[in-house]
Amino acid sequence: MRNVRVILWGLGAMGGGKGKVLLNRPGVEIVGAIRSNPKKAGVDLGEALGTGKKTGVTVTANPADVIGKVEADIVLHSTASCVKEVYDQLEDCMKAKLDVISIAEEMAYPWAGSPELSGKIDQSAKKHGVTVLGTGINPGFVLDTLIISLTGVCTKVTKVRAARINDLSPFGPTVMRTQGVGTTPEGFKAGLQDGSVVGHIGFPESMMLIAKALGWKLDEVKQSREPIISKTHRETPHVKVEPGMVAGCRHIGRGFANGKEVITLEHPQQIRPEAEGVETGDYIWIEGEPNINLSIRPEIPGGIGTIAIAVNMIPSVLNAAPGLVTMNDLPVPRAWMCDLRELVERE
Amino acid sequence: MRNVRVILWGLGAMGGGKGKVLLNRPGVEIVGAIRSNPKKAGVDLGEALGTGKKTGVTVTANPADVIGKVEADIVLHSTASCVKEVYDQLEDCMKAKLDVISIAEEMAYPWAGSPELSGKIDQSAKKHGVTVLGTGINPGFVLDTLIISLTGVCTKVTKVRAARINDLSPFGPTVMRTQGVGTTPEGFKAGLQDGSVVGHIGFPESMMLIAKALGWKLDEVKQSREPIISKTHRETPHVKVEPGMVAGCRHIGRGFANGKEVITLEHPQQIRPEAEGVETGDYIWIEGEPNINLSIRPEIPGGIGTIAIAVNMIPSVLNAAPGLVTMNDLPVPRAWMCDLRELVERE
Repeated sequence: MRNVRVILWGLGAMGGGKGKVLLNRPGVEIVGAIRSNPKKAGVDLGEALGTGKKTGVTVTANPADVIGKVEADIVLHSTASCVKEVYDQLEDCMKAKLDVISIAEEMAYPWAGSPELSGKIDQSAKKHGVTVLGTGINPGFVLDTLIISLTGVCTKVTKVRAARINDLSPFGPTVMRTQGVGTTPEGFKAGLQDGSVVGHIGFPESMMLIAKALGWKLDEVKQSREPIISKTHRETPHVKVEPGMVAGCRHIGRGFANGKEVITLEHPQQIRPEAEGVETGDYIWIEGEPNINLSIRPEIPGGIGTIAIAVNMIPSVLNAAPGLVTMNDLPVPRAWMCDLRELVERE
Repeated sequence: MRNVRVILWGLGAMGGGKGKVLLNRPGVEIVGAIRSNPKKAGVDLGEALGTGKKTGVTVTANPADVIGKVEADIVLHSTASCVKEVYDQLEDCMKAKLDVISIAEEMAYPWAGSPELSGKIDQSAKKHGVTVLGTGINPGFVLDTLIISLTGVCTKVTKVRAARINDLSPFGPTVMRTQGVGTTPEGFKAGLQDGSVVGHIGFPESMMLIAKALGWKLDEVKQSREPIISKTHRETPHVKVEPGMVAGCRHIGRGFANGKEVITLEHPQQIRPEAEGVETGDYIWIEGEPNINLSIRPEIPGGIGTIAIAVNMIPSVLNAAPGLVTMNDLPVPRAWMCDLRELVERE
């Protein structure tokens, strides 16, 4: 049986990371690579990934060089966050009869913000016989799939609360800007208003994944973003924060059913949380029968976690029935440590 | 659309518990109930469950009164632990075109101990167009499905270690005997030899579920059972343990691939663990990229957890393709808090 053939669309930290993982795996080969910046195109994928080994695949900035032209099975898609931004790209993949795993945050449950486009994606996927999945560490796992799987051992769930407390220190200037790190409280407020400070993308998606799985009807979803104002000096290679300045964004999502808050997801993201004794971790509390109190310490790292889950879902997506699917619809995620061809049913 | 119709086969603590949960759920009805003890048969199910409400279903000790006679969709099966013991019962259900969810521990991955019978069950299920699943809190969730789902965010897994540290105090004389609680160390040893002390049932099944999901080939599975010798006086309504006597069983399972121990599952079960400062909980450590360190404190309670997951898997099993399946094959477990009919695709 031939190898599973993968196209990488997007070669930033996430897309590039997936590429590096796949280069070391048996039963799979990368047959195409697209990146948006033409200045970084034209080189061998090995060079683009910094592995020092030639792959024979030339990185292109023109999707039409690859999609619909190169024979392939699946696209690992890592270009943008919003359904609107990625819709045309997904449509191109589907027309070329390619399955897609996207880490666009909104694609984790695209009906949350784009019901109409979601309907179109689902129709197109079915028409072309392909499967489209949105996933990632969050949305996609920590604040939705993991919570959902824990409810599986409950006879009753009345409320779900979870917190992902992480450290932004490793990230670069873009993340600092979108989380408001290094600004003043006034600058943070202005950033929220002009849309430059966004906090976490994915709360409505995670909440609606949970609600859909449990059969809850959410009648309202609320979000709040507040500055985490530092009491101490904090510093990373990219930003300095003095006392009184903003060290991060405390982003909270709340879901209501019948007027009652049934889902509370907290995601305070900041640099150097240890400076004020904040211990990072992923925490889940389920109120029901029984109550469940889970901690993962330290938190599952976001970058490698997102790379992993996108790569790990390949066999499930290849085996799935056509359509736009979510993490709710597929078998429990798992790392595959064998030849990928052993796990693929079709072909 | 009509209600989902369930038959309860087995009405002990687990089967009865499932019954009580289902009586309160919309879109589902219990249409038959079988218990092995004829002295407890002949009564209304409501009386058998102690709910004080008539159900119109009479408990029978004769399976033929129900299986193949009463129109139904699925059997919740809770009669015994081993594949050999339940095989004929499952066969009866399948012939009657009934899906089955069994909590027989070995059914969580029946190929582990009974590959031949497993093949027969799978064939029969496919022939009759039904789905058969084995599940439970453990095997079925804590020491397998939950571990597997966490590996989904790892790019590499080199070793899995987990411990389920629980409290046997609520259990009755049967559990005390099978775990050796209240015996002397010599009595414990003799019990292991004559098979009266068994410890936990399910380690090979959990290990092979994990290995199958990750694509590992286990070349050896080892188990050890040691007495937990008490240093203090411990007591429950059913048993007294003096210092030097056995308070429980430390049961460990180890799975080896290429001669290396890649899975270690520990399940020390004892009465009054707090007497010696032992904190109960479920713990998972994954070694890989990244490492993951998870705790659930206190542990997910075994009884209600088993009842819950058996009930919660009903829609997934009804929607699944025919065959003998495992928790690896079905969508992530979840509690359903809505009308069951909303979740069922077929009919």
